[in-house]
Amino acid sequence: MLTLEQLNNATQAEFTALLDGVYEHSPWIAEQTWHARPFASLANLKRALIETLRTSPPEARLALIKAHPELAGKAMVTKSLTAESTNEQSKAGLTDCTPEEFQRIQQLNADYNAKFGFPFILAVRGPRGLGMNRHEIIATFARRLNNSPDFEFAESLRNIHRIAEIRLNDKFATEPALGNLVWDWHEELAKHTEPGYAERNELCVTYLTDAHRAAARELANRMREECGFDDVTIDAVGNVVGIYHGKDPQSKRLLTGSHYDTVRNGGKYDGRLGILVPMACVRELHRAGRRLPYGIEVVGFAEEEGQRYKATFLGSGALTGQFDKTWLDQLDADGVPMRAAMAHADLDISAIDALKRDPSRYLGFIETHIEQGPVLNDLDLPLGIVTSINGSVRYVGQITGMASHAGTTPMTMRRDAAAAAAELVLYAEKRGGSVQDLVATVGMLEVPNGSINVVPGRCRFSLDVRATTNEVRDAAAADIRNELAAICERRGLQYTLEETMQADAAPCAPEWRLRWESAVEALGLPVFRLPSGAGHDAMMLHRVMPQAMLFLRGLNAGISHNPLESITNDDTELCVRAFQNVLNQLATDLT
Amino acid sequence: MLTLEQLNNATQAEFTALLDGVYEHSPWIAEQTWHARPFASLANLKRALIETLRTSPPEARLALIKAHPELAGKAMVTKSLTAESTNEQSKAGLTDCTPEEFQRIQQLNADYNAKFGFPFILAVRGPRGLGMNRHEIIATFARRLNNSPDFEFAESLRNIHRIAEIRLNDKFATEPALGNLVWDWHEELAKHTEPGYAERNELCVTYLTDAHRAAARELANRMREECGFDDVTIDAVGNVVGIYHGKDPQSKRLLTGSHYDTVRNGGKYDGRLGILVPMACVRELHRAGRRLPYGIEVVGFAEEEGQRYKATFLGSGALTGQFDKTWLDQLDADGVPMRAAMAHADLDISAIDALKRDPSRYLGFIETHIEQGPVLNDLDLPLGIVTSINGSVRYVGQITGMASHAGTTPMTMRRDAAAAAAELVLYAEKRGGSVQDLVATVGMLEVPNGSINVVPGRCRFSLDVRATTNEVRDAAAADIRNELAAICERRGLQYTLEETMQADAAPCAPEWRLRWESAVEALGLPVFRLPSGAGHDAMMLHRVMPQAMLFLRGLNAGISHNPLESITNDDTELCVRAFQNVLNQLATDLT
Repeated sequence: MLTLEQLNNATQAEFTALLDGVYEHSPWIAEQTWHARPFASLANLKRALIETLRTSPPEARLALIKAHPELAGKAMVTKSLTAESTNEQSKAGLTDCTPEEFQRIQQLNADYNAKFGFPFILAVRGPRGLGMNRHEIIATFARRLNNSPDFEFAESLRNIHRIAEIRLNDKFATEPALGNLVWDWHEELAKHTEPGYAERNELCVTYLTDAHRAAARELANRMREECGFDDVTIDAVGNVVGIYHGKDPQSKRLLTGSHYDTVRNGGKYDGRLGILVPMACVRELHRAGRRLPYGIEVVGFAEEEGQRYKATFLGSGALTGQFDKTWLDQLDADGVPMRAAMAHADLDISAIDALKRDPSRYLGFIETHIEQGPVLNDLDLPLGIVTSINGSVRYVGQITGMASHAGTTPMTMRRDAAAAAAELVLYAEKRGGSVQDLVATVGMLEVPNGSINVVPGRCRFSLDVRATTNEVRDAAAADIRNELAAICERRGLQYTLEETMQADAAPCAPEWRLRWESAVEALGLPVFRLPSGAGHDAMMLHRVMPQAMLFLRGLNAGISHNPLESITNDDTELCVRAFQNVLNQLATDLT
Repeated sequence: MLTLEQLNNATQAEFTALLDGVYEHSPWIAEQTWHARPFASLANLKRALIETLRTSPPEARLALIKAHPELAGKAMVTKSLTAESTNEQSKAGLTDCTPEEFQRIQQLNADYNAKFGFPFILAVRGPRGLGMNRHEIIATFARRLNNSPDFEFAESLRNIHRIAEIRLNDKFATEPALGNLVWDWHEELAKHTEPGYAERNELCVTYLTDAHRAAARELANRMREECGFDDVTIDAVGNVVGIYHGKDPQSKRLLTGSHYDTVRNGGKYDGRLGILVPMACVRELHRAGRRLPYGIEVVGFAEEEGQRYKATFLGSGALTGQFDKTWLDQLDADGVPMRAAMAHADLDISAIDALKRDPSRYLGFIETHIEQGPVLNDLDLPLGIVTSINGSVRYVGQITGMASHAGTTPMTMRRDAAAAAAELVLYAEKRGGSVQDLVATVGMLEVPNGSINVVPGRCRFSLDVRATTNEVRDAAAADIRNELAAICERRGLQYTLEETMQADAAPCAPEWRLRWESAVEALGLPVFRLPSGAGHDAMMLHRVMPQAMLFLRGLNAGISHNPLESITNDDTELCVRAFQNVLNQLATDLT
């Protein structure tokens, strides 16, 4: 069993020997990382190794990739794998492949090598560290074959880092126990899914369906029975509210939480992480018999995604007095009014107003959430501190030109709506890239009933602009609108543009953001700040109290609202630890 | 009754007085046109008047537009219209409007004036010179309100020229008798339309349907009974073939014609003009008892549009031995094989091979066709001489990036398929405009299942490139393909591109093109040459004999494959006269 002390006191040669096998056939990585001693934590060591790779020349990284064996390849058959690879590939059941599966993998290996020029690398022990099954491995392999070469180069290195992480855990004989716990809770919670989705192994938990109510009961039971919350209720809109009192039950509370509803065929972590991480922290406090100088109120918000009804942020909105009573008459796709769905769930509509919280009873609101974006994954960082929840504005529009024959209309006589839209797309892209943390997207683009031989007479599009402040957002949106007008004026076209949504930016409260930063730093991790491009429950609480968020890296390029959404047990452990650090700091601040 | 002689001998003041009222309240147009005397024909005078306008300052043209009264406006009510306007507006039944119609027109007048700043002008006596009805007028008014200001400015002037043309015809007490005849024949022929279309007053005549066979019978009957063809048959693929022998029935023949099938909800003139114009010429020869030193073979091709079956140019292809027997097993949308449709129509499949013509028996092939494009309409020219039927190549493609969250994916980390497609659209537009008579079009453009808040992961598109020569086409297509590769390489995207069609360019035979040029010049019209961007039956005949085409102006910006496709009786008259001129020249050349 390896310890940090051993490594911190080792000579370069000893150090390199102690880390032998962590990075396949590549002792130079440990050798160079030796200079970064001492390491404050295992996470700090992992980061240092990653930084050695990140600053190495591309050829060195390619050589590292090429030093890996093919998956279930010749080396496995001829038993010439490293001990670590043998262990990993057999744990994944690759040695038990049927002849057809083996042949499929060989074909994938050949195709992959032909396309990218290096072997396919996958951390087959997976995000929970226990081993993916053969079917998952083959599906991942097939999917990654479609990636572009530069993405796949980086994805290979990310898998190599994950392999190294698990090998280091083995060497240190350590396990991310809290990470595993929270990871497994997500799995349990994801067993509740709506009919029609369950059969396809998809997750769908929309407001007040049976699956949704079962998820709420599971959360409440876990809070009550496993975590030791003092008071657990399901409130009048379906929020699961767990209170863990401070030393003085009358003391102010820290409010935290996120949502447990999902989009259709969504991921397991979006929202839920922000409920389960603080639950794990309360569980640890309770097991230690520890009370803080403040209470903790964890809320599993019933609704954030706006899937069954057009009532986004319903759960957190109820806490800030923003529950809109007209929502009650909205119908879902089956014609069921929200009012009826709530009655069916035994929710007491008359009690909704009383859910509004008195901000003076709270210290503030914090939320952890999967990033839902590619930034942390790309930087190989497990955690990131949110600076602001971006303000956004959305439009839908249509450019109208004149449909005409593609063969007979000279280029000079066209009124091509798609060419105008193309200019707009590129302007939006350029303008979005002109300011840090600003984004502008044309997500919908369509020539309705377009024909191969007709100059487009119409083109529909959408525009989504987000920025860390309303001012930056509004300046960009105005420029893009003006450019649209100028493009259409120049080309003799007409257009319509309709604003469909606008949301204010919610900058995180500086003193709370600093708590997250200290918490991350104390783990031996770099402090990295980023805005949240997506909306979160914290946006609602922002209206009445200070708020700050922590992001956890999402795997698979940070894909969101998709079953491929994923996190690792090790990252989750760090997230829980960061949350605990904030709790402890806050306790110190208040005593 | 005015004569050219009078005008050619008039002083400037007399000339201006003689043409008083042709252009509303604007004697300066006649005054300036006086310098262009002498006029060789009425068409030549009309052209000179147009040229005066075309070379006048924009303010003068705007003043002319503003000199016109509102349609059914105050001037009509207070009886202060010019005599010409009163005549026209009452011919169109505008004085008989119901109060609702009158109110509707007043609202349209107000909206139009507010949008464009000038009154709505429409040649209410219409393309046949007899007067549009109130419903047509109101529909046209509503449609034109959607146009862009610069288009509507030009469209107003085109209507003013049409008004002037009809006023001049009245002054000259002349009528385009042959133009009216052929125009009316189109109306008669358009009465045959398929069930489902007839009810909506739409034209649809696809291969071997009842409507199609009725159209063939009408053509054959008209050839036989009204035009005096010697030999009229419906051949083994449904072509209507009429032969008018030369002095010696064994002499070579001039081949001419076009197709009588239509697209679904198409126009009345596409194809049919090229059958009916030579029919009118033969009628005139027959009425005069005249035989030429060569025969005339007019073919109404049964199929060109490829609507019911994927067998474009079936009719003309049968004459060049290009009838593909595998077509016989194709099914239409109702599952009827072409073979069964032909049997049902009493066509003898075994006789198809014998339809192949021996080129040595023919002088060449000529075809007249509506332009199906905006060029002649924009230049105020009734006729244009085709230089080449463009070669074309078509592709469908897809760019694949990575779908990601529009809020959370920084601009620098996107793989936006739509932005790449936007670059391609603009490159194709630029490259298409880089060479005279080259066109490049992205007609289909779509982010499949695009969402307002998702960076496009895929974008589908089409590409259509056409040029007067294969070399120009191929160079442009290669550049665009290379640019697509470069865009995707630069952005880290992937793409597919599939060529779906390629057709060779068919340059018109110079000696035949010159015959059309002389014919047009002899009418007192400018010789204007343009390529054909669309495919025509002449492309097929091109493979075996010299061919040349004449285009007739299409109204409504040259719209094609649309019920708004339109021509005037005066233009049609000029087209018949040009065809007669070619026949006469050819007679001279051969004697």
